[in-house]
Amino acid sequence: MFDVIKGDLAQLEEHLLQAVTAPEPDITEIGSHLITSGGKRIRPALCLLAAHGGPKFELARVMPLAAALELIHTASLVHDDVIDAADTRRGAATVNARWNNQVAILSGDFVFARAFAMVAEQGYGKSVLKGLADLVGNLSIGEIIQDRNVYKASRDVADYYARIKKKTADFLETCCALGAEVGGMTQEEVARLADYGHAIGMAFQITDDLLDILETEEQTGKPAGNDIRQGILTLPVIRAMEVSPDAEELASIVTNPEMTPEMAERALAIVRATDGVDVARDKADEYLATAKASLPAALPSDIREAFELVADFIGERNF
Amino acid sequence: MFDVIKGDLAQLEEHLLQAVTAPEPDITEIGSHLITSGGKRIRPALCLLAAHGGPKFELARVMPLAAALELIHTASLVHDDVIDAADTRRGAATVNARWNNQVAILSGDFVFARAFAMVAEQGYGKSVLKGLADLVGNLSIGEIIQDRNVYKASRDVADYYARIKKKTADFLETCCALGAEVGGMTQEEVARLADYGHAIGMAFQITDDLLDILETEEQTGKPAGNDIRQGILTLPVIRAMEVSPDAEELASIVTNPEMTPEMAERALAIVRATDGVDVARDKADEYLATAKASLPAALPSDIREAFELVADFIGERNF
Repeated sequence: MFDVIKGDLAQLEEHLLQAVTAPEPDITEIGSHLITSGGKRIRPALCLLAAHGGPKFELARVMPLAAALELIHTASLVHDDVIDAADTRRGAATVNARWNNQVAILSGDFVFARAFAMVAEQGYGKSVLKGLADLVGNLSIGEIIQDRNVYKASRDVADYYARIKKKTADFLETCCALGAEVGGMTQEEVARLADYGHAIGMAFQITDDLLDILETEEQTGKPAGNDIRQGILTLPVIRAMEVSPDAEELASIVTNPEMTPEMAERALAIVRATDGVDVARDKADEYLATAKASLPAALPSDIREAFELVADFIGERNF
Repeated sequence: MFDVIKGDLAQLEEHLLQAVTAPEPDITEIGSHLITSGGKRIRPALCLLAAHGGPKFELARVMPLAAALELIHTASLVHDDVIDAADTRRGAATVNARWNNQVAILSGDFVFARAFAMVAEQGYGKSVLKGLADLVGNLSIGEIIQDRNVYKASRDVADYYARIKKKTADFLETCCALGAEVGGMTQEEVARLADYGHAIGMAFQITDDLLDILETEEQTGKPAGNDIRQGILTLPVIRAMEVSPDAEELASIVTNPEMTPEMAERALAIVRATDGVDVARDKADEYLATAKASLPAALPSDIREAFELVADFIGERNF
């Protein structure tokens, strides 16, 4: 998917590793564990692609920004894993599992700090720095609000869209917009790539959420219906609460903090018996079409194709 | 102590409150709880004093920096309280106690982000931003290293100084140096105020640590010997391990993660029977003398006096 920036992504790994290196061996060990445990690098890839599309593209100039975006994502996942008491991520032990919660909270802070140190050195200008700081602020706000609203089934689909915007779409939007800006695109082109990023972000999260309904434990290593069990409502569930003959039963399960595994299974069955998953899939496809239509006309063809492939990839995603 | 910046500090409170305000009422509630729960504001005060001492002092210019320094301190305390499972701080409920650990981890991230957003808007230049990012990074490293080394009694006093430098002295040094820089002082004056900040930071932490040995539960609301019980060695304990006839017994207690309250009491008694506290107090006084001697000659007399009062205040501290 990312052939056009394959070399850049190899370089990125070196930058990421260097960013989490410190004179103290314990710190470098934790940092490298985090970086080498993988990740799809979709955020820095979008930033690099966007920068490539601009008239002032310079790899050395955009690389620290791309790395900072991935570091912010990494730090945020480290804190999420403490919150969810998760043992593994991407098949590797989480920091909280391999070390402990203390180390995980502090190393998340450390990785956030290294992201800001990295961009501070570049002097990108106010809007880039403000964009990154707002990104971290809004990510945190989004998660606090989600945490405050679990088991309070809002049937309002607007609440759902607002939530996944803060959780995912704002992030991918920032990656595209800041990359485009550092690449020297016009204001209008930056805005169009921001729209693209927003739309694929919405599609990505909707797809992620519907996979949670569809997948079996064999496929993912975690039981299906994880969101339901955590009291988090996703699009298929909201749809089912509108159309299912068992809507009331579903609502009573998903608002119950004492939900048993059997109740969660029953809720899943109710959702699966409706067109909830299809409605969500259609909505994701709609966002992907919007994404493609948002791409600026002036993009070089190889970069345009890469952006289109990203959208297709999200549409076909079943992992 | 801070008469010369009394008006500034009143304004600071408004800036702090505004920084943690968000469209979401839940977020503003958590943010204001954090800001209105108090704190001595020593970090922004040092930054403001240093800026006042420079030829290019402009209150509106330095205020966001002063606020950002206090926000970083606040965020770091929110995460510390999760790590220590603390219920109260400065007499108010901690975020983890009043809400929960999830909210506390995320609101710490939010407050860090708002600190960086605040300085991003000002365009202070690379060195200020880099200084703040490195500050957060080094604070986190310092705490991770401390966490990895509890109950591993190093008798090496150099380890102790390195630890309190990262924990406290680097922070106060950064407050003085960045304030001086934004106030337009010369490189040499910035360096001298940085030395002042480092020295009062070392003195402050040594005093804090010796109060943990001296104070009774009635005075502080928490049992004395808190550090010992957490497996953290401070200067009086290290001294006692050098000179006490019961040094071996002390060493065996402070390296025991299963330490009982009775064992901690016995360790305290061994330390109190030596000159450990006096040695630590002398060391703090030495740092305070260095601090005063470091003040740049060109400081206006009211600012110089304020800096000297801060040093005296730390020396007389028994709270």
